[in-house]
Parts: sequence; structure tokens; C-alpha cells
Amino acid sequence: MNIVVAQSGGPTCVINASMLGVFLKGKESDKIQKVYGSLNGIEGLINDNLVDLTATLSEKDVEIIRQTPATVLGSCRYKLPDSEKDSTVYETIVKNMKAHSISAFFYIGGNDSMDTVMKLSKYFKENNLDICAIGVPKTIDNDLVETDHTPGFGSAAKYVTTTMQEIIRDSSVYSIPAVTIVEIMGRDTGWLTASTSLLRVNGEKAPHLIYLPEREFSVNEFLDDIREIQKETPSVIVAVSEGVEITDEEFSGDDFRSGKVDNFGHKYIAGIGRALEEIITNKIGCKVRSIELNVMQRCSSHLASLQDIKEAEKIGGEAVKLALDGLSGKTLVFKRVSINPYKVEISSADVSKIANQVKYFPPEWINEKGNNITDDAIEYFLPLIQGELDIQRENGLPKHYIIKK
Amino acid sequence: MNIVVAQSGGPTCVINASMLGVFLKGKESDKIQKVYGSLNGIEGLINDNLVDLTATLSEKDVEIIRQTPATVLGSCRYKLPDSEKDSTVYETIVKNMKAHSISAFFYIGGNDSMDTVMKLSKYFKENNLDICAIGVPKTIDNDLVETDHTPGFGSAAKYVTTTMQEIIRDSSVYSIPAVTIVEIMGRDTGWLTASTSLLRVNGEKAPHLIYLPEREFSVNEFLDDIREIQKETPSVIVAVSEGVEITDEEFSGDDFRSGKVDNFGHKYIAGIGRALEEIITNKIGCKVRSIELNVMQRCSSHLASLQDIKEAEKIGGEAVKLALDGLSGKTLVFKRVSINPYKVEISSADVSKIANQVKYFPPEWINEKGNNITDDAIEYFLPLIQGELDIQRENGLPKHYIIKK
Repeated sequence: MNIVVAQSGGPTCVINASMLGVFLKGKESDKIQKVYGSLNGIEGLINDNLVDLTATLSEKDVEIIRQTPATVLGSCRYKLPDSEKDSTVYETIVKNMKAHSISAFFYIGGNDSMDTVMKLSKYFKENNLDICAIGVPKTIDNDLVETDHTPGFGSAAKYVTTTMQEIIRDSSVYSIPAVTIVEIMGRDTGWLTASTSLLRVNGEKAPHLIYLPEREFSVNEFLDDIREIQKETPSVIVAVSEGVEITDEEFSGDDFRSGKVDNFGHKYIAGIGRALEEIITNKIGCKVRSIELNVMQRCSSHLASLQDIKEAEKIGGEAVKLALDGLSGKTLVFKRVSINPYKVEISSADVSKIANQVKYFPPEWINEKGNNITDDAIEYFLPLIQGELDIQRENGLPKHYIIKK
Repeated sequence: MNIVVAQSGGPTCVINASMLGVFLKGKESDKIQKVYGSLNGIEGLINDNLVDLTATLSEKDVEIIRQTPATVLGSCRYKLPDSEKDSTVYETIVKNMKAHSISAFFYIGGNDSMDTVMKLSKYFKENNLDICAIGVPKTIDNDLVETDHTPGFGSAAKYVTTTMQEIIRDSSVYSIPAVTIVEIMGRDTGWLTASTSLLRVNGEKAPHLIYLPEREFSVNEFLDDIREIQKETPSVIVAVSEGVEITDEEFSGDDFRSGKVDNFGHKYIAGIGRALEEIITNKIGCKVRSIELNVMQRCSSHLASLQDIKEAEKIGGEAVKLALDGLSGKTLVFKRVSINPYKVEISSADVSKIANQVKYFPPEWINEKGNNITDDAIEYFLPLIQGELDIQRENGLPKHYIIKK
């Protein structure tokens, strides 16, 4: 049999490690002849745009792919229609899979990708096709249910904490009062923002305030929080999730939120960091700077967590084992079986349990005032950011792998 | 004799290495008993806020300081008045220096700090005081005259190029047309933005367009440039200096530039990256994202250039030699004596030649259209980003040194 792997959704630092996990396990198995890569996610299967990875990737390539950010096979945001309503695209996919003798599809992605895996496996089953679809989780948001954490999150947390620590040093050099606001990814959940509490393990006092979308946000309470910290230190550091919303009537109409609508119909607004910067300038009047960590949170492979890379690669390999066992409509999950020392086991779950669900940051790990994270969260985060890859460089820059299309 | 070292202006990744250069050379010399650190730049000498580094720093501390970003001794933005107009602060400084038997002052900083060194050495000389003042250059902007390059620039360039390469990967995963604009520090000069051309040495085609403040900027030409690149690739990457200004009448009044005035009287405007993002959204209508690399450019010590660290430390040591030779009112400069292999020599220059001057990016290294950098610049940049420090970590995070005040 042949198999095919694809990558979908927003990039992470280890989505390529999971692809390698599928590729290397497939190559190792004597039941599998060829491992194909589908370019631009499911779109590659629809347009018959496949690469024979078995014939393409050398051992050296594998090493470089492990340290390459984003998706080597490209990505997409394609959402499958319900097959009951329109099965055309399903028929095309099956036709192309059969043409290449492919009987297993592995989709590395987040919530939306799990929806695709669920729909495909249902269609394959209903039409008595001997093809399986398996999901491999990834997201820097760490918001998939049923799993202890998601591949990609550890590397993002390592970047965010390391960078936050450097920003704290940078922001603390002057003796005058200043506020630094760092906006961190997470529209619905605050996992990544909360990970900055990790810095306390090395004695760091900042960030002094941490705000997640899981709790309601009040601008006036925020200003009081800032004034309180300013009594103790001139340099106040704030971590805030991009998903935190200003609902106070007094502030929500301010003109820093332009209210424009973009091409996709999304309301075009200034980020929360920038909005809070303006409010502090107006209401407190001290020096203030907002910093958006932006896509660097998901693509700074030079600082990826080795633990994350290893787990991502392993979970990719386990996906192939599931397929060889004849399973379909499943995804892989981590169970933390020991906290200290840290130990995870990989098992599988029905993809229907995970698709379109959201795992929020636990309320019991947020302090009463909703402006910081409790120490209990630290031992959860800590093992996920451990270790670094020995990066191969050329001319002082990390080597990246680019696939020939 | 005793000596004192201070740090000033915006942080870099290697300003602490220069401090170590002064400290270690001072410790090594049998003519020097104590090396003091002045906290918060010249303010420490004014307020008698000094730390005896000789008694404070262990060998282990030295290793951690080398990898600590920002200024271990704090910083300031203090500008000395002319001594002819008001000599009070000069008298206080001299009184405090004499009280600690200090006869040499080393100031690590940029343009403004060189102004302080110039004024102090002039005052010392005019008053027949046996005290010298020596400048040690640093700035990520690379805009000091008389020197081949400045300590701090190489590390900033290494961060900017490495991160730009990762952003290119991240931005290239989808098959739909998209523009990514990366805004890079440099208000007056485009050195750091131009360094992104370095990626070509490893075969990278992006950034496709590079704009510096040294050349006039036209929005309509910019839009034409984008459309031209879009014919060849769906993912267009742009590097733009923060100092690039929109002067086109058609666009300069747009509401994305709020025109508000902040507490310091500065016109509060959205960054150039964000402004261009809005213009592309309105005029081209494709997916567009702007990214501001912000303070990470100057504080990402985990990615500092080893070449830069070594040179910064060496130049600090050479400053002490100048003082021991009885010189004052000098600063250190690099002369590139060989291009391939790269070799620099350190010599000295009158600080009056450097203070308040600006070295612009050479016009001959900008292409005719003013939207890219020529290959000649690459061999200038390349040696400056070479090598990495073996970072000491604790709990997966780089160790930082914090001075006890």
C-alpha cells in the first residue's frame, strides 16, 4: 500500500517533525511502498498535486526539515462540504488516491483539519472504501480537547517565554516609570499567554500582570492593577492575549478601534496591545510601549523546544501504526502519566470528539482577580519547553528545506 | 587608580560584552585597583550611585553577563548641559569621582553618549583635572561615522535576517496571493533593513523589495513594485525601515495616521508597516500582514552574533588601554583591513568627529529604482553575523544576570 501525508492550517515549528514521523515510519514499514506528500493540504489530493517523498527525501534532507519552520508541503484553509450535500470533491479525492494506490491519509492540523478527517473517514466508511483517514494534532494554541497538550505549543511557549524574558531586561534599563505590554497569540484561549508565568521558576518577577480571554476584562480594573504595581517597580510588564476584548462602554468606542471591515468581512481592529497602550498614555501618562509577537511565535524554529520536536515526530509515527492496525477516523492524543518526572503516553481518540471543540485554560489556574496565573500551571508548562535542537547553519543562518514542486 | 564604566542609550545584545571588556582589562592591569560601574549611565556618577564591580563580579557572573541582553548597569537618556552655561553637574561628577579615586570614565553608547564624552573630556582638560573620558561605541543602527561598523549591529542583523527567513517560510505556505511587510528599526538610516539582503547568499529570493529612509518613497511606485513581483510569486515579502516616510499628498492625510500628539509632543503615528498594510488592503485587496520586529531586534541575546560579542568585548578592553596611555576625548573605531578573509583592526578617533554625526547607508549599494540592495553590500554584512554563543540555560530558559543595587 501507499500512504499520503498533508499539512493544514496555521504553521507551527514542529508540523514538519510530525510529517517526518509519518514519512520515516512509512519508509520503515515493509507494508508501505510509497509515502506521498499532498501539496497545500487537502488541495493537493483534489488537484492531484502530490510529491513522492520516498523518492525525494534524503537522510540529510530529513535533518534540515526537522529545523525548518512552517509547512514544507504548504498549507490550506479548505473546508470540505458535507458529502450528503455535495460529494463531487470526495469522488475526486478517492479517484486520485486510487490512481496512486493510496489507502491511508494523514492530516496534520488543528480543529478545522480534524473536521476534514472526520468527514473523509465517514465518507470512506459509508462507501465501503478500504481507505483510512487519521488526524495528527498541531496548534500553538494548545486548545484541542482530549489531549494533555498539542505539538507546536511547547515551541511557541519556549519562544514566548524566552522573548518575554529578553523584553523584561530591555524594558528595565531606565529609572523612569514605564509600562510594556506584550500581545500574545490566542483568540479564544490564553494558554500561550499564560505560559509567560513560567519565568517565575527562575526568579523573574515579571510579567506582573497576565490577562487571558477566559476572563472578563475591565479597563478601569486594569488601570488600577498597573497603578498598584507602579508603587513597587518603575517598569511594569503586562502579558495580554490577543483575544482579550474591551467591553467597557467608556472605552470600546474609541477611535483607535477603526471598525473597518476587511475583505473577508472581519472587523478590522487595532490589536488589544496597541489599544491598551493608548489608554495608558491617556489615563496614566507614563512611557508606554506595546509589542506584538506576531507570527514569530509560530515560526521561530531556531528556538524550538526539542521536547516538542521529539513528541511531534513520535506522534506522526504512531499515526502510521494506527493505519496499519486498520483504524480510521482517529487522532492521536497525549496522556500525561507522570508529572515529576514528566512522562507522556500516546493513545488515540475518535476525531469526532476533537473536531470543532475548544479546550480553555483551566479557571482554577487563574488567580481570583483574573490578572495572573497560579503556580500550579508552572509544572504543567515547564517540561514542554525543555531542550534545543543543534541547529545546522550556513553562512551564520539556519538551513531551511524547500521542496521542489 | 580606579576607573568607572557606564552604559547609555538604547540597549543592544553586546553592550554588556563591552562593559566586560572594560572590567576584565581593568582587573588585569596592575595600575588599576577598582573598576566601578555607574548605575543608569552618567546619572550614577551624578547621584554617587556606583557599584564596585571588582568586588561584585565572579568568573561565573562574567559568563552570564556575556549572554544577558540590555544594560546590566542600567541606562539613561541624560544630556549634559554646556559647561560654560552651567557647570554645577560637572562639579558634582568630579567631586564624586575624586571621592572614589576614579581617574578614568568609560561611556558605552551611541551618538548622544559620545556628546557626553566630548563635553566631559573638554571640561576635565580645561580644568586641568587628571581624569580622562573615553567613548566605547554601540548601536544597532550602525550609523556612527569613522568606524566600519558598530558593536551591536551584527547581533541585530543576525536576529533580523534569521527572523526574516523564518517569516518568509511562514508567509509562503498558502497558494493565495499575499503580501507580508516587515518593519525594521532605523529612523534615519537603513543599515539594519538593508541587512536582510544577506539572505540571498543562501539562495533566498525574498525579501523581494527593500526600502530605506535614505531614498524617497512613493506609494504609487511601491504599489507598482508589488504588482510586478506578484506576477512571479503569490507571496511577496517587503522589508521597510521604520524611518521611511509617506510624503505622497494622496496618502499622507489618511486616517491610519492619527496625527495625535503624545505627552512628549511627538506626533503619534501608526508605523510605516501598518500604514502600507492598509494601503495595500485598499488598493490591491489581497491578503496582507505587517510585522514590527520591535525591541526584539536589540535584545534577542539568545541569537547574538559571536563575532559581535567578541569585537564588543575587545573594543572595551582597548578603551582601557587608551586611558592607561593617558588619552582622553577619544573613542574606538573598527577599520576593515581585509575583506576576504574578514579582518578588522581597532584604532581610536577623536570623539568630536563622531558625536552628533550620522553615517548613512551608501547610495551605491541601493539599486537604481530604490527598492532593493545590490550584491556588493552582502560581503560587507556577512562576516558581522557569524557564530553563536553556547547559551547557558536554566529550566530551558537562558540565564540572565541582574545586578544587586
